[in-house]
Amino acid sequence: MIIVMKKNSQKEEILKVSHQLQEAGFHCHLVEGTEKTIIGAVGDKSRLMNIPLEALPCVEKVIPILAPYKLTSREFKPEDTLIRVGNITIGGSELQVIAGPCAVEGKEELLLIAQIVKQAGASILRGGAFKPRTSPYSFQGLGEKGLQYLALAREKTGLPIVTEVIDTASVDLVAYYADIIQIGARNMHNYALLKKAAKTNKPILLKRGLSATIEEWILAAEYIITADNPHIILCERGIRTFETYTRNTLDLSAVPIIKYLTHLPIIVDPSHGTGKWRWVSSMAQAAVAAGADGLMLEVHPCPEKAFSDGAQSLNPDNFQKLMTNLNNLAPYISKKEKLNHA
Amino acid sequence: MIIVMKKNSQKEEILKVSHQLQEAGFHCHLVEGTEKTIIGAVGDKSRLMNIPLEALPCVEKVIPILAPYKLTSREFKPEDTLIRVGNITIGGSELQVIAGPCAVEGKEELLLIAQIVKQAGASILRGGAFKPRTSPYSFQGLGEKGLQYLALAREKTGLPIVTEVIDTASVDLVAYYADIIQIGARNMHNYALLKKAAKTNKPILLKRGLSATIEEWILAAEYIITADNPHIILCERGIRTFETYTRNTLDLSAVPIIKYLTHLPIIVDPSHGTGKWRWVSSMAQAAVAAGADGLMLEVHPCPEKAFSDGAQSLNPDNFQKLMTNLNNLAPYISKKEKLNHA
Amino acid sequence: MIIVMKKNSQKEEILKVSHQLQEAGFHCHLVEGTEKTIIGAVGDKSRLMNIPLEALPCVEKVIPILAPYKLTSREFKPEDTLIRVGNITIGGSELQVIAGPCAVEGKEELLLIAQIVKQAGASILRGGAFKPRTSPYSFQGLGEKGLQYLALAREKTGLPIVTEVIDTASVDLVAYYADIIQIGARNMHNYALLKKAAKTNKPILLKRGLSATIEEWILAAEYIITADNPHIILCERGIRTFETYTRNTLDLSAVPIIKYLTHLPIIVDPSHGTGKWRWVSSMAQAAVAAGADGLMLEVHPCPEKAFSDGAQSLNPDNFQKLMTNLNNLAPYISKKEKLNHA
Amino acid sequence: MIIVMKKNSQKEEILKVSHQLQEAGFHCHLVEGTEKTIIGAVGDKSRLMNIPLEALPCVEKVIPILAPYKLTSREFKPEDTLIRVGNITIGGSELQVIAGPCAVEGKEELLLIAQIVKQAGASILRGGAFKPRTSPYSFQGLGEKGLQYLALAREKTGLPIVTEVIDTASVDLVAYYADIIQIGARNMHNYALLKKAAKTNKPILLKRGLSATIEEWILAAEYIITADNPHIILCERGIRTFETYTRNTLDLSAVPIIKYLTHLPIIVDPSHGTGKWRWVSSMAQAAVAAGADGLMLEVHPCPEKAFSDGAQSLNPDNFQKLMTNLNNLAPYISKKEKLNHA
Repeated sequence: MIIVMKKNSQKEEILKVSHQLQEAGFHCHLVEGTEKTIIGAVGDKSRLMNIPLEALPCVEKVIPILAPYKLTSREFKPEDTLIRVGNITIGGSELQVIAGPCAVEGKEELLLIAQIVKQAGASILRGGAFKPRTSPYSFQGLGEKGLQYLALAREKTGLPIVTEVIDTASVDLVAYYADIIQIGARNMHNYALLKKAAKTNKPILLKRGLSATIEEWILAAEYIITADNPHIILCERGIRTFETYTRNTLDLSAVPIIKYLTHLPIIVDPSHGTGKWRWVSSMAQAAVAAGADGLMLEVHPCPEKAFSDGAQSLNPDNFQKLMTNLNNLAPYISKKEKLNHA
Repeated sequence: MIIVMKKNSQKEEILKVSHQLQEAGFHCHLVEGTEKTIIGAVGDKSRLMNIPLEALPCVEKVIPILAPYKLTSREFKPEDTLIRVGNITIGGSELQVIAGPCAVEGKEELLLIAQIVKQAGASILRGGAFKPRTSPYSFQGLGEKGLQYLALAREKTGLPIVTEVIDTASVDLVAYYADIIQIGARNMHNYALLKKAAKTNKPILLKRGLSATIEEWILAAEYIITADNPHIILCERGIRTFETYTRNTLDLSAVPIIKYLTHLPIIVDPSHGTGKWRWVSSMAQAAVAAGADGLMLEVHPCPEKAFSDGAQSLNPDNFQKLMTNLNNLAPYISKKEKLNHA
Repeated sequence: MIIVMKKNSQKEEILKVSHQLQEAGFHCHLVEGTEKTIIGAVGDKSRLMNIPLEALPCVEKVIPILAPYKLTSREFKPEDTLIRVGNITIGGSELQVIAGPCAVEGKEELLLIAQIVKQAGASILRGGAFKPRTSPYSFQGLGEKGLQYLALAREKTGLPIVTEVIDTASVDLVAYYADIIQIGARNMHNYALLKKAAKTNKPILLKRGLSATIEEWILAAEYIITADNPHIILCERGIRTFETYTRNTLDLSAVPIIKYLTHLPIIVDPSHGTGKWRWVSSMAQAAVAAGADGLMLEVHPCPEKAFSDGAQSLNPDNFQKLMTNLNNLAPYISKKEKLNHA
Repeated sequence: MIIVMKKNSQKEEILKVSHQLQEAGFHCHLVEGTEKTIIGAVGDKSRLMNIPLEALPCVEKVIPILAPYKLTSREFKPEDTLIRVGNITIGGSELQVIAGPCAVEGKEELLLIAQIVKQAGASILRGGAFKPRTSPYSFQGLGEKGLQYLALAREKTGLPIVTEVIDTASVDLVAYYADIIQIGARNMHNYALLKKAAKTNKPILLKRGLSATIEEWILAAEYIITADNPHIILCERGIRTFETYTRNTLDLSAVPIIKYLTHLPIIVDPSHGTGKWRWVSSMAQAAVAAGADGLMLEVHPCPEKAFSDGAQSLNPDNFQKLMTNLNNLAPYISKKEKLNHA
């Protein structure tokens, strides 16, 4: 931790700050510059305490040196974390594609789309039973019935299923049905939910918050890993910016950065990342070329009739074309083999 | 709802879209422009359905005309909503100041600061017992003990108390103690929590999400009001932007806009809005001059020792000076009288 | 300057970096932490060199300690800079209001509005003769004829005039007519223009760039002051954020921050800051309460017929009402007296 | 254009607005909804006029239907624009890589890096002679001497050169030496510069502004094309967001969107887009997979000694590795063949 003192700070002020740091268990190194004095504070566990020295008028700013996360960091665990679901591995040499409708809308529709995405090469089925919607008047999902349809689709196709949980009260219910539990972007900061979901010991797919920095996102994963669940898949899904042409701005630089800072696998959701089916395939290819471990895609048999997110869902034809392209592309990305089932 | 068709759309395509809208209960008006055709779709309740026509290749975009919220809108209820807590009214002619520490840290500290803020003219006491923290290693609050200390401080000072609830499991506990239940910025999108908190029928102080648009924020309030709780206070607390000098960018234009679009009272939190005590007083004055119904301020007897948010907490002296300024300023803002207790 | 070495950096790597810094004239202080080593580099003028140590794989990051600006900083010159234009002072105890149309549209219209704003208490007249427009198809201003009309309005009313310059070629022309030269938000980064405008030795009104940080904005002022022109007025006019309800997000925290970091006066433009006349008066009051030295307001005799920015222009009635409110408010803001001419 | 009237607007108000539109040459279609009335205004050239109806209290908002740009749009010219420079084509089936140092630092250094990037497969040499720098104390470029060194490097290697122009005064000078004239991000809104550069009739490489929307960027290109220069290459280089881990957020969705909305070629600059050499190669691959026509990369023989942007420059080894990867990848992107010279 570096403490920058204001210009013309008095010696006593500098000593007072050093003293306070020493009391908190830090060793202090003074560096007197030509204009300002800085204090380098070295300490161990105490670094986790957030001493609010900026409250002092003589302190200009406090600059942390160490990352605030630990167990998720690659410095802590250099080798890649692999997530195994059935006979599928996320984070290894195969590219995994999660596909399916935004929301589970009915039994027949789900079984149909599950067959379609499986045949095209998807390895995991997605579908929302509990939907967090900006408006209370929007379709909120089928609830447990949706989970049952997902389980049925798994039975028929062999595809593992991922579905979102939106409150602590339904964590156990969702965990009973799901192979992977999704925490959505709106809930990335919902720490009670992160901890409760972690306890199920199911793999957690953790989406980046709408306006979460990469550091905050990793700290959300740290909540899960400190609750003894290391089975975490991060999912970049676009961040909120001033650009309104797309629903979000897909931040693909998160892919190499997450791989550098952490040992966790990262997948990309270009459906939410763009908000429009027209841009999904290009961004899916780009995500794979950036080194993503997988993709999460919304596919609907008839997008213009979808209950939610129809505008960003691929229809079966476009999904099939994309999968063919990815299959050609994947071998040329370092460490990625062909698609799993293709 | 306006549907803009792509240039050179075929007549059949336009008819197909119109037909689909008519099936959903809309009346359609075609406006053929020199370059593009648009369809004006008029309907009633069906407007709440989100027909994903953008999924059709022939549709360029869909533009909603009506606001997606209803019960919170001033068009629905033209007169101001007043929130009564004890003998205090929020949203009326008096400016209300909520003050206290970020987190309840101990009994003596809380009773001390409660006396201080009361004497300076605050009318409501704040203090967090459950703290949503970005890092799992940060202080997470005293839990129920914190709530008990708050109740004690209320007993000693007569100040009503506002405190945050961070998960559905503790809503009833928080409601048992609190006069006003706070939903924090990170939970503005936590719809399960909004609905559960609404059911307590206590006034809800709803903070704007870190990157929530004004419309999304009003929709979050719509979740509360549709759960039959109209006692909502909105709180602007800064939004996330590219500027890093401040913790957030306080969007004071939200004050007149919320008053224009809704009938709900709005207060401002310049402590989170700036992240630094040094800018809090100026922004507090600005908020009042913009027409805010109140302020929410972090005050700590010794900010440099605070367990959380010390850097943005006012010390008692600066708080006292600010209150004196506000007391002078308030009468010159249209419809605001002097401070409550001053 | 602080250099943070990557974890497990070799001793030779640390020495190599220190050596490179020493060659550049820095004194180096090593602080060995429990996890990482940091190098504190102390130097004088050499600080201005931007040694790209982050290009080295062993360097995690480089953190500057000193602000990159100097002559504009309050540390360099503690007392307020006052700008004198005719018998008016900007940055002193009086609040100054600059008002007028977005663009000069014609002689009669300008003379009319000049009279109106003068009578309401404005002390400086604004009006654009050269307009930087996002679209090549929008009205681009009357050019020199517009400047001549401004000069005529000054003659008739006695109000000094401020007008924008948009390229180096017309700097001398604009300086011939204007009392204050405006550099618009789009040109804040146009360093050639900053330097050329500075050479006129006229006061420069420097608007904040659409997405400029406060530091970048001060550095733009540093371009002017290093070209020997200290007569600079900064103008906050809103920044670009995700919020689309307003044209920009007015960052009023810039007011106290600029006053803290620099010795320059700062005014606020709530017309561009909100983009909508409906919110201008509230934000103007808020700006004054935040401590601004003045306001810049678009006023048009008939906004719905304005050639540009009609939506954000006040009509004469609303401007008059605002001025009355400001006149009541100003005395209660520390160090501000009543409005100049009121 | 759609005009949404406020709820409960009087018939006379609606007629008055319609009348004003008709006077301006529009045909009006009224659509009376259950809550609000909208006016669909159809017109031709008059659409370019910006009638500020939002200035009227009875008007809620005005929604434009047609894009504000024309000559750059794919609707206007469906076939791709190809830019020919020497025997190289940008926008065709070959991927073009522009590489070289951020700034020209000296003759020998430039000739060295020119040879290196050529051998690795780059087809165009980049290098700045005039540098727009945020700080007046940073290295500002070698000026005309830098241009002469670039010309020499072209002579020795046969690579065409691209270099930036930063003010109107040096446009002719830069055009004398350069094969492609670059307009940097900070100058995208500098309309005087756009028009002057256009007049040279050289191809213009137009970078996206730091916080420019895609629409504003296309409008900047419209300034060039309406000045009779259709030889425009757009360059995505990252936008400003709240994320601070990267210098900018590279918005790769701009690639398919620009290709959809316009007929112009688009390249990507992942050096500025990330600000850190470590992420450049991943993002370069992603850009190609998204469909970019080329890349612009900073390469320096010894990045840790670069005068500017060292942190984001690739060293020769990493550049060579990237080029090998791209060469493998390119054939699998639709319509892209192998790299030009490889």
